[in-house]
Amino acid sequence: MEELSLGKHLLIEYYGCDAEVLNDRDRIRDLLIEAAQRSRATIVTDVFHQFNPHGISGVVVIAESHLAIHTWPEHRCASVDIFSCSDKMTPSVIRDFLAEQFKAQEISSIELKRGLIPAATRGNEDRTVHLSPS
Amino acid sequence: MEELSLGKHLLIEYYGCDAEVLNDRDRIRDLLIEAAQRSRATIVTDVFHQFNPHGISGVVVIAESHLAIHTWPEHRCASVDIFSCSDKMTPSVIRDFLAEQFKAQEISSIELKRGLIPAATRGNEDRTVHLSPS
Repeated sequence: MEELSLGKHLLIEYYGCDAEVLNDRDRIRDLLIEAAQRSRATIVTDVFHQFNPHGISGVVVIAESHLAIHTWPEHRCASVDIFSCSDKMTPSVIRDFLAEQFKAQEISSIELKRGLIPAATRGNEDRTVHLSPS
Repeated sequence: MEELSLGKHLLIEYYGCDAEVLNDRDRIRDLLIEAAQRSRATIVTDVFHQFNPHGISGVVVIAESHLAIHTWPEHRCASVDIFSCSDKMTPSVIRDFLAEQFKAQEISSIELKRGLIPAATRGNEDRTVHLSPS
């Protein structure tokens, strides 16, 4: 039976990055927010956390699902997840913008389909048009 | 060269779930928080969003990284991500607890290594012991 996915998930690792950028919470937040906007995602809310002595964890909840980042400045490495349930946003824009801003020397990226359902049961749902205040 | 991973990522899909549970924001939040506690994760903050007419997106930021959920009650389906950077928590506890609470008839689950670095460069970092107020 043909299957359709309810979401797609881009998993990215950045290597050889600028360690200072990866350890600056405000900068990381600004970059993720700008990346989301450039991809045409609709931002709902965000949370970023600075670890001691180093490293940032952050999530941007978007109407299309979420972005998440974890950084290890001591290894010049960052992991980014882009989970989207709408074709209205373009995840690769986020991936490429962050690569440039992090000055990444190497990128590893895979895309997975999430929430596979039989094609016959899928309607015209699109999370982006159903957003309401929480 | 031997490689070590900075994080591990469990990606889970639940099928044939209880649609009412999947569309109840407070219940989903309570379940994710309880699941995180049962796995011995350290909760930093959380955000959950109810979509109109149906569906929940939520993230729990934990000292060990993050949990994320997206639900499609209309398809009785939910996707859950458990990203962890510490061996002190047990992701499978979260997976199994949610399966039971969602009354899932089918589960699909894969684990990926994230942030692969040469083994020689890794120290004894453990995010759980570096948590500080943000």
